Order: sequence, then structure tokens, then C-alpha cells
Amino acid sequence: MLGGETAQRRFSFGLWTVMNRGADPFGAPTRSPLDPLQAISGLAAHGAHAFELHAEDLIPPGSSLPERDRLLRAARQRMEDTGIVCVACGSDVFSDPIFKDGGLVSNEARVRRQAMARYMAAIEVGHLLGAPLFNIWGGRDGAEVDASRSPIDALKRLRDGFNELAEYIARQSDGMRLSIEPKPNEPRGDLYLATVGHVLAFIATLDRPEHVGVVPELAHAAMAGLHPAYEVAHALYAGKLFGVHLNAQRPLRFDQDLRFGGANLKDSFFVVQLLEEENWPGPRSFDAHPYRTTDEQGVWEFVKGCIRAYQILAEKVRQFREDPEVQELLHQIRQWDEMADPHEAAAPEGSVRRVFLYERLDHLVFEILMGTRSSGRG
Amino acid sequence: MLGGETAQRRFSFGLWTVMNRGADPFGAPTRSPLDPLQAISGLAAHGAHAFELHAEDLIPPGSSLPERDRLLRAARQRMEDTGIVCVACGSDVFSDPIFKDGGLVSNEARVRRQAMARYMAAIEVGHLLGAPLFNIWGGRDGAEVDASRSPIDALKRLRDGFNELAEYIARQSDGMRLSIEPKPNEPRGDLYLATVGHVLAFIATLDRPEHVGVVPELAHAAMAGLHPAYEVAHALYAGKLFGVHLNAQRPLRFDQDLRFGGANLKDSFFVVQLLEEENWPGPRSFDAHPYRTTDEQGVWEFVKGCIRAYQILAEKVRQFREDPEVQELLHQIRQWDEMADPHEAAAPEGSVRRVFLYERLDHLVFEILMGTRSSGRG
Amino acid sequence: MLGGETAQRRFSFGLWTVMNRGADPFGAPTRSPLDPLQAISGLAAHGAHAFELHAEDLIPPGSSLPERDRLLRAARQRMEDTGIVCVACGSDVFSDPIFKDGGLVSNEARVRRQAMARYMAAIEVGHLLGAPLFNIWGGRDGAEVDASRSPIDALKRLRDGFNELAEYIARQSDGMRLSIEPKPNEPRGDLYLATVGHVLAFIATLDRPEHVGVVPELAHAAMAGLHPAYEVAHALYAGKLFGVHLNAQRPLRFDQDLRFGGANLKDSFFVVQLLEEENWPGPRSFDAHPYRTTDEQGVWEFVKGCIRAYQILAEKVRQFREDPEVQELLHQIRQWDEMADPHEAAAPEGSVRRVFLYERLDHLVFEILMGTRSSGRG
Amino acid sequence: MLGGETAQRRFSFGLWTVMNRGADPFGAPTRSPLDPLQAISGLAAHGAHAFELHAEDLIPPGSSLPERDRLLRAARQRMEDTGIVCVACGSDVFSDPIFKDGGLVSNEARVRRQAMARYMAAIEVGHLLGAPLFNIWGGRDGAEVDASRSPIDALKRLRDGFNELAEYIARQSDGMRLSIEPKPNEPRGDLYLATVGHVLAFIATLDRPEHVGVVPELAHAAMAGLHPAYEVAHALYAGKLFGVHLNAQRPLRFDQDLRFGGANLKDSFFVVQLLEEENWPGPRSFDAHPYRTTDEQGVWEFVKGCIRAYQILAEKVRQFREDPEVQELLHQIRQWDEMADPHEAAAPEGSVRRVFLYERLDHLVFEILMGTRSSGRG
Repeated sequence: MLGGETAQRRFSFGLWTVMNRGADPFGAPTRSPLDPLQAISGLAAHGAHAFELHAEDLIPPGSSLPERDRLLRAARQRMEDTGIVCVACGSDVFSDPIFKDGGLVSNEARVRRQAMARYMAAIEVGHLLGAPLFNIWGGRDGAEVDASRSPIDALKRLRDGFNELAEYIARQSDGMRLSIEPKPNEPRGDLYLATVGHVLAFIATLDRPEHVGVVPELAHAAMAGLHPAYEVAHALYAGKLFGVHLNAQRPLRFDQDLRFGGANLKDSFFVVQLLEEENWPGPRSFDAHPYRTTDEQGVWEFVKGCIRAYQILAEKVRQFREDPEVQELLHQIRQWDEMADPHEAAAPEGSVRRVFLYERLDHLVFEILMGTRSSGRG
Repeated sequence: MLGGETAQRRFSFGLWTVMNRGADPFGAPTRSPLDPLQAISGLAAHGAHAFELHAEDLIPPGSSLPERDRLLRAARQRMEDTGIVCVACGSDVFSDPIFKDGGLVSNEARVRRQAMARYMAAIEVGHLLGAPLFNIWGGRDGAEVDASRSPIDALKRLRDGFNELAEYIARQSDGMRLSIEPKPNEPRGDLYLATVGHVLAFIATLDRPEHVGVVPELAHAAMAGLHPAYEVAHALYAGKLFGVHLNAQRPLRFDQDLRFGGANLKDSFFVVQLLEEENWPGPRSFDAHPYRTTDEQGVWEFVKGCIRAYQILAEKVRQFREDPEVQELLHQIRQWDEMADPHEAAAPEGSVRRVFLYERLDHLVFEILMGTRSSGRG
Repeated sequence: MLGGETAQRRFSFGLWTVMNRGADPFGAPTRSPLDPLQAISGLAAHGAHAFELHAEDLIPPGSSLPERDRLLRAARQRMEDTGIVCVACGSDVFSDPIFKDGGLVSNEARVRRQAMARYMAAIEVGHLLGAPLFNIWGGRDGAEVDASRSPIDALKRLRDGFNELAEYIARQSDGMRLSIEPKPNEPRGDLYLATVGHVLAFIATLDRPEHVGVVPELAHAAMAGLHPAYEVAHALYAGKLFGVHLNAQRPLRFDQDLRFGGANLKDSFFVVQLLEEENWPGPRSFDAHPYRTTDEQGVWEFVKGCIRAYQILAEKVRQFREDPEVQELLHQIRQWDEMADPHEAAAPEGSVRRVFLYERLDHLVFEILMGTRSSGRG
Repeated sequence: MLGGETAQRRFSFGLWTVMNRGADPFGAPTRSPLDPLQAISGLAAHGAHAFELHAEDLIPPGSSLPERDRLLRAARQRMEDTGIVCVACGSDVFSDPIFKDGGLVSNEARVRRQAMARYMAAIEVGHLLGAPLFNIWGGRDGAEVDASRSPIDALKRLRDGFNELAEYIARQSDGMRLSIEPKPNEPRGDLYLATVGHVLAFIATLDRPEHVGVVPELAHAAMAGLHPAYEVAHALYAGKLFGVHLNAQRPLRFDQDLRFGGANLKDSFFVVQLLEEENWPGPRSFDAHPYRTTDEQGVWEFVKGCIRAYQILAEKVRQFREDPEVQELLHQIRQWDEMADPHEAAAPEGSVRRVFLYERLDHLVFEILMGTRSSGRG
């Protein structure tokens, strides 16, 4: 019953999500390595229609050009065999110690060039895999030692870098777009592009703002205590939602990247509602990782769980839309809005006395989420 | 179907929850005052079996003794008429400006005496209403100006105060117990008794620790990023869960006191699971308030919503317990535990390779919460 | 010694800061009312050069036009007598219950009109007091019940409202500018314009973006865990820093509005560094309030404390700039940047081995803050 | 001038702090390995009088007994050569994948035995190094999948484990004590022993509570938004402060383990004030790590910075104690306390009018911290 709807939606996973080996700052890997080609096959076999990658997921840094091409051919073959497509490419400009004080914002010009070279090489990889989007999360573009770099200089370096990258992408002229994924902190003490708002504001200062968009990640919004649905709404309002990274996060914590549906149930419902009701056409991409306690087998449970959680929440969005009592309450709200001539003198007393049935409306969301409204399908 | 189970559970509300008028630090009240007797009747009429109160909810500070007795008689009459009982009493030792720098910890001895006098008068009220518990949330017992008071001195003043109160209560010898409700901050910058842990540790330093317990509030735990179910578990483990305040809270925020079920769905499930599976006999008390946007009518929707949310979650606890796949997974977990001779030499490699089906187990919690497991009732 | 520098800086306070009576969500006022004219005189007498106000601080809602004019004349007289000027005006569109579900985003058209009427009347007041800025903090423009309003609709309503206000202000043609002050939450569960980033992004969607800027408040940034200096940097980078609200805030808490210097010492240093080193010409405005434990006399200690804290931190900014060891370390950092031909092939190994003296640099900030560098003045 | 006071204080570092190689969840190590013997020498050479260690810092897991003894002899020789002593030992029961779902709380009995074996072997190592304290941070004793383990069962397993360890230590009868270091989360989603309060409460349930204490870490307190000085105060009040881990932490973030003095300046002052004014005799231990951007040379800057920060703050504690205006204000506060007969009828109105000079007192803390009080030394 839920499966029928997936035709209109493409589910996507970062290759790095299933290749994650369960290491954390206090512990060694718990899972054996997963080959990227196996990752692609496995995703296809468990319900995904697409994948994202960091170029480095497929092509180890330092690979020769022939080696790169061999790996790309193998990946394309695997994509053809499994019917899965690549919807976004990025680059890991955060793991290598050279980037320890920043990629595009490093205090060394040649490190900044190195970061640019990485991104450009990854753009090539993206092109060759048919990725329509190049998404950058600049995980090292922040600081702990604020005396070492003015945040204004950092923003100018980011601007120069993104201008050059947008120009580079545009020259390839195959319609690839560029996006930025914000995060408030971690691994740096503070990151310069912290939220969807900061990214949208930053894009407006670029030479080609029309080619650059944003990819909100739910967990990153939660880390700043922001409502993830509002982050998505800001991007949609600005016409800049180029992608979305779905996952979950308990608040007041390190970046957990929990399975979609693993926490934040109500917030996730409102994110799905926005994507569905606005008919957002992009892929539903998951950027999470299995629990460190999970073995290799559990990785595919994780994949199925993410997809299933989205399908269930999308079905609840439909139930919410069709629920007669919800409809009646929303109708009343619209009536209040339209009833009075907006230009007549306002009557505060009347407004205060107005019956706002928000408690009931909010409780109905709870019941729909819990599956306890019999009126669901009618 | 859900209703049948309420026989074993008593639902309770603070009188202050429905009497809340919707004021906040930036806004005036939005609802007209609700008489405490109407609050009692209204609660009874909408499914509550019990209430808590601050003595001041019923008896305005400064009332004469005859006035107090008149109000108490009226309340007892209303309780008899409606069948509702009083399960806990406390005192508002936080609103009056005299307590601006603390009740039991104030830097003025006579203010501390004043706080004691308030508590003792409220204990009287509790006795006269038949309350088996006197619960103290010392909302002013904290500081912003740490130079003004050593936190060790503060703890000693709290100890002296609670020793005297426990002694005072014991002298009445009708079995009333004393409890403390922790909160990490607000309205003070920091409160001395911040979490269930701090309260339990503090109780161990009192003269009569056996008579004093803790009342965790879910929102207060969430304010410190703590798992509310772990807070409840610490209290149960210590044999000190004398009450519980159910509500909801978005993290990283002021104290919201949201309707139970209004947020934190998964955490709330695990709290209810503990209360139900441990057969905790106390009342399920709600300490929340209607949205400020809600009118008088919505107050009763709020009451019904809290109760309904608990009933739904308790039913899900039952489904979880009976779900065959959940049972099978939990059985496997127990098997791992028992399988090996615990005293044999450990085999780390084997353990690492162990199949941990936690992803699946956690996803099943999601499905049970969403009501999408058909196997629920079997 | 510090005083000499204040000539170049104007210190400003919101009238509401000293008129604050110490009420909080759990407690009644602790200070008697302060007349706005006395507030103006008192500020002037204690070192302030300017003030901000909500029109309602001076003119009670519902005042007749003659009454308004009488109050405005009295205020202008007091300004002339004391030499203090008005640098920003706003309006309290958050206290009145009519705005309980939003000002510009309310679900009732006539409430939105009411909010517009309030703002327009306050713009008049601002004009008549010579305020060069109209600053809006839309404290009710958020939600708790997300089902009641699409956040995209909310942003569209905000856009329509701000477009109309900008147009209205422009028609008066005396150069007044419009600004928006972001906040992530409180009093609403979530606010739509949460951070400097969100405001800057939103401004880019207005009809007259050039007339609209942002006023960051340090405490509001801290509430989202964002670095306040980065918030200020984003505004400066975008050419949109129209004002700043200086205060302090312990994290993970309700909006405390602590005295500048009362917390966040290091972050505050970097904020002051940006304002001073970028020669930002605007007033240093404090938006905080005295501790609730403070009496009327303490209010003026609070005023002096804010100003003195800024002066001390500005002096430390100068010491940092002139400290020989700091200079040497920053010189080294610049050298690394310029040394290598940025277009030569990068040499990652060399970079990794690079001596980054960030520990020392960061420690020197600590010593300068603590006043333990004798080299300070040279 | 500051140096003279260190005679009464022993500064200590975890060996792991200087051996930290700068890896983080998103990045590879940036520093080459540091040999534990070099760590000991380096600490001694840069001002430390003592060290703590995880046994595994010195003795790689899997070492043979002769290899262990060889390493221990070398360490003792190095300690004798440098005059540095070992003040605490612990064990790394968190890195190895076997402990992925817990050490003492694992769902597998044989993993729990493995954890016990690790701890017991490390206790041996501690004995042989003369460590008077065995400190346990059970970093894996938490969960993400709450369905997998009742938190009550977890607490019972912890109780059994700690009882056995305390018994084991007591049998060695050389006066070694046992302590627990709390943390709210990370690397697990939630940890069972989250705060000082929870640890103290838990200790009260052990068979030998008198032998077990707590080691608060400042950053861990900050992660839960708790005041680190209050955490230390709870431990002192309970007579259970067996150690302290000094560092810094920006709030709302992953566990940063910043250099002491790198953030939280005011909170750190109040922590130092408690340790100094209460004449706490234990070592001032730093548990932090150099910035990942820092090279090998910077590691020793980090060590010097931590010590220097403590010395500076301790000097400020002395200045605060001796500042005449501070003395006068604290005298007034004491007078209010004693003035009135505490048993006379309270006079609330008078109290409300009481002049509370907290704004001034708090501002004086700021000035003393900033080094701008000339009266400091008299």
C-alpha cells in the first residue's frame, strides 16, 4: 500500500552512509569495509533509486588517472546493471590533515588551492557519473582560535572559492548545479556557514547566485535548536532547495546522524509535509549512518528503515490532508482570516476572544502520527 | 478499548495547569481567570481522577484563617461531589518578590523563615485535603550572581530546611511524604537541585532520607539534554519515585511545559514503558499548560489531550511487549547474555562479529509508535 | 584612561532595559515603575549618549493624539536638556493578547493590519524623536502548532509586511532605515526569523533590500549556540549591520538578557574586536536588564557596568593589536599565506608539518583578557 | 609571583592529553605518536607535578606480562628521574569494538566480564605506579536503542560491577580509592551516569559507598548546561570530591576538551574559587587536548597554558578575597542575614525594599577577572 507511492519519489543515500564503519572519537571501527560497488548494489537491492557520494568514496585520494577511470567505468557499469543513478557528488575536503585549519578558508593560500583542486577533480567525477548536483559541506571551514582569522576574511575567502567553483561548473555547461550544506559546528568549534539562513545570505553575495542553492540536513538544524521544517521552508521560499539530507538527531549532542525516524518524529512529519505538499521534485536523500552497535547485516536494515520511515510519514501527510476534522479546523482558520475586511479598524477584544482550536489541531497531529485516527483512509 | 485500562491508573493535573492564563515573559494573560473550584470540577468532568495544587492556587496568600477554612471546606465539598482526590500539595515560594534571591537558600535568615512558614502552612493545607505527598519545587533556590553565595552554603541551607520540614511532616504522623522536584534553571540562572541525580544525592545527606523522594518532570530533564526515561529510572532504581510530572518540551529552549504528547514522542514512550512495566502505582500527573494561543474552551481539549496521549502510549507499550518480532529480538538478546559462561575467557573477536539487530529493534519501536504494525493485537 | 575613547563611541540603551521591573514567568515585579523621562535622564546621568525605545515605552497604547504629542514634547525637551539622542525606535507588537498568534504572520488578516498600524504609528514616533532607525523584533512571529500555518506562508506574510513598511518609511524620505532583529525562539516555540543569516536571506527577497538591515543581539545568537562574533561578521560582510544589541547569556537557557560582561567574556571580546577594528560607526547599544534581585539603585550600577565592560574590552582589543608577541604570531600566519606560490602544486606533507602556533595565540588572548600581559601598553 | 603558590598545588595531566594525535570523527591524526615515557618527561619539563593515565596509554592491550612489567619499570624509572608522580589510573574500556554496546552494562555477560578483567588489570597497573585513585569513565555505558536494555537493569549491572571493583580494590588494602567520572552523552547517545548528582546518588546504593567518590569534569557539566562550580560543590558538600578534570567547552557542542582557560572564564573562576577557598587537597588535573590545528611543539604550549590559566585564576581568587569593596559588599550581605531575629515574624515589604548590590558585586568579579582593579594587591 505504501509502496505504490514510491514511483513518484526517488530515495537516495550517500555511499558514505552504508560504507560507514562505526568508528567514533572514542572508538575503533566495528564493521569491516564495504566496497563502493557493493554499496551501490546493496542500496539498489534494498529500495534505493539513487546515491550521492564524495568522489573519495569511490576513488581513493592519490589514485592515478587510469585508476580513476577504471573505477568510474566500474561504477557506471554497476549503475547500469542496477538501474540506480547518481544524484549528487561532493568531495571530502575534511579528513586529510592538510585541511586541518580549513579548506577554502585555510590561512595558507596553497592549502586553499589544494581544496579547490580537490573540488574541481570531484566535479569531474560528478560529471562522469551524471550527477546533476555538486554539493559542498565544508566541514573544516570554521575555527576554534578566533584570533587566527577574521570571520569576515573567512567569508571573503569562501566567496572567492565558490565564485570560482560556480564559474568552473558553468564552463562545463551540462547543467550541473552547485549547493552548500550548512552546519553550525563539528568538527570545528564553529563553522562559518552555520544554517540554511547563513548559506542563503551568503549565496546572495556570489557572482552567480542563480546557480547556487542549499542542501539542509535535519540533524544540523537540530544541533542549533532550529526547527528543521523551517530550515526547509526558508530554502523553498527562496527557490533554493537543491537537495535535502534526511536523518535524525537527539538535541544537545554531537552530530549523531541517526536513522531517519530514529528521533524527532513530529519535526520529521512537518519536513515530509513540506516536501510532499509543495511537490518538491528532488530526491529524498538520507545522510545518516547505522548505529555503531550494528553489524554489516544491520546496515541494510538501516537502509530499509530510512525508506520505510519516509513512506510512513508521507502516508500520514496524506491522512492529515484528508482527515475531516483537520479539514474543518483548517477551514475555520481560513475563515477567520478572510472574514473581516482586513482594512477595517481592528477590534482587539474580539480577536482575543476568538476560539483558537490549536490544542485540538495539534493533538490531531499526535493521533495521526500514532495511527489512532480511524478516519485515516475514509 | 483504551478506556478500560484507566481503572488501574489515576490521572492527575496540577490545578495551576488549567488555571494558567497564558501570560509569558513577553506577553499579558490571554485567558480569563479560572476559579479553583471550577478547575476541580472541570478536571473531573474531562477525565481526571485527581489533582495536585500549590496551596496558593486555592488560598490566596494573606488569607485569614477563617477564609482559609471556608475555601478548604468548599474544595473538599467539590472533591466529594466530583469524586476527585488530591494527590499532592506544594507551595508557591517563587512568585512573591520577597523570595527573589531564594526561598530556603535566601541570604536573609528571615526570608528563609518566611519560606519555611509558607511551606508549613501549605503542609497544613495538604493534610486537610488528604494529600499523601508534599512536593517542593524550589524555583528560586538558585543564583545568577555566584559571588553572592557559596553553592556549598546553599546546599547546607537546603539541608537544614528539608530536615526541618521532614521533621515537621513526621510529627503530624498521618503518613504524608515529602518530595523534591528538580530543574536545571529558570527562573534562576542556575538552580542548585538541577536533576533527579542531584536530588537523590541530596536526599542521602538528610536526617530522614527514607521519608523524602523525588518527582521528575520530563521537560526539566529535557532542558538539560537528559533522557527523561533515565531520570525516571534513577528514581525507580533508588526506590524514590514519589511522583512524576508528565509534559513535553522542545530542547534548547525556555521551560515550555507543553501538553504531554506535544513533543518528545519516542522519549515519552520509554517513560510510559517504565511506569507501566514496573507497575509504578502512583498517579500519572500532568504538569503542563495549554498553548497561550488557546482559549478557555481549549483548556479542556488540553486536558483530554494529555490523558489520551498517555493512554495511547500505554497501549503501545502493550503492543511492544506482545509483538512477536520484538519478542524474538529481545529473546535473542537474552540468549547472547546467557549463552556463554560468563567466567570463561572472553573472545573479543566473536563478540565483535555478533549480530546485533538493534537497527531492526529500534525501527520496530518506530512502527509501533506510528501504528503501522498489523501484528499489534495478534 | 578608558574614558577618553568614548568620544568616538556612542553608548545607547533601550529605555525598556532600565524600565524593566524584574518580573519573570514565575515571579511578580520586584522594582517600582520608572518613568520614561526619568529613564532618559538617568541614562544620560550614568554615561549613555543615546537611547532606543519601543514607542510604547513612552506612549501607552491607546493614548490620544494630544496625549501622544504631549509625551513626545516632554521627551524631546528631556533629550535637549540632557544631550542624549534617540538612535532607534521600535514597537511592542508582542505583549498585547491580540498578537498571541503573531503580528505580521497572524492567521487573521485584521490582526496583521493591527500589527502594521502599530508599526506605522511607531515609525511616526521614531520620526518625531529623530530616530535614524526603525528596528523590528517580531517576537510573536513564530509558532508552536506547526499544523496551523505553513512556514512558507509565514515568510510570505512577513515579506508583504516588510515591503509595505519599507515603502511607508521611504515615503517619509528623511533617511530613516529599517532593520530586523532575529531570535531563534521565545516567547514562541520557534520564530521564523531565527538568526542573522535568516534575516539577511529574507531581506534579499524584499522589494527594497537596500533599505533594510539587521540588528544582531548577542544573547539571541548564544541561544542557538552560534558564535555572536560570526553573526556580527555576517552582517558586516553583507553591509547590513544597522545596529547591535550587546548583552550576555548563559547557554542552554531561557533568554536571560544579562548585563554586557556578565558572561561570554571571550566571545564578547571578539564582538568588540570586530566593531572596533572595522570602525563600525553605529551606536554600541545595550539590550539587557538588571538582575531581578537588584533594586532601583542597582539599575544604574547595571548601566555603568555595561558601559565599563565595553570600554575595558575595547582597551583589550587595542592591547591585542599592539602586543608584540601577538603581532609576531599574526605576522607568521600571514607569511605562511603569502610564502608559497598559490598556484604551484600543493605539498600536503609540508603543510601538515607546518608549525601552527594557535595554542600560544589563543592563550595570549586569555592573558590579555585577564590583564596579565605587562607588554600591554608598551 | 604566581609561581610561588604552586608549591601547595600539584598540577596533573592525563597522559592521553599530550598523547592525543588530533584525530576527530571527520579527520585523521595531525600529530605523530608521542611515546608515553616522553609524555611523562615532557609533562615534568613543562611544569606538571603529576600525571594520570589509562593503563592502555602505557601498556598496549594484549601485552604479555613480561612486556607489561618492562613498561612499568621504565615508567617508574622515568617518574623517579623526573620527580613526577602518578595520581590516578583508569582503563580504556571504550575504544575496543567489543565494548560497542557497553562495558559494565553490555547485554553480553562475557563482555561485562571482559570489562571487569580490564579494570582489574588496570587496578594492578595503578598499584604498581603508586596511584592513590582508580578513576572510571565508562564511556560506553549508555545506549542509543532504548528498547535494547532497561535503564534500571543498566544501573543494576553498574552496581554489581562497582561493588565487585570496590571489593577487589579493598582487598589490596593499600588505600587506593575508587571514583566515577560522569558525562551526559558521547560517544553513546545517552550515558547512564550523566552528572555528578547521578554519580553521588548511585554511590549511595553501593555496598561500600565510603570508598567511592566522583571526579567532575568541567566540560561534561557544560554539555548538560550545568554550572561546573555547582557540580564541584555537590561533590564537596557530599565529601566525595576525589578528583577534578579541568578543561573548557563551548556549549551546545560535541565534547571539545578545550585547554583550561580556552572558554568559560567566569565559570572557571568560580570552580577555582571553590577548590582554593575550601583548601581542597587533591591534584589540579587537566583533561583536555591541544587543538587539532596544533603541531607537536604546540602540545607543550598547551600544557603551559593550562597551568598558567589555573595560576592566574587562583591569583584572582586571592584578589577577590582581599578586595576592599568586595569585602564590604559581602559584609553587608552577612549583616542582612544576621541582623533580624530569624524567628521573628517576617516583614516581606522590608525585604523587598532591601538594597541588593548584586549588580555591583557581579561587576567587580568582571573587573577582577579583567585585571582592571588596581586595589588587587593593595
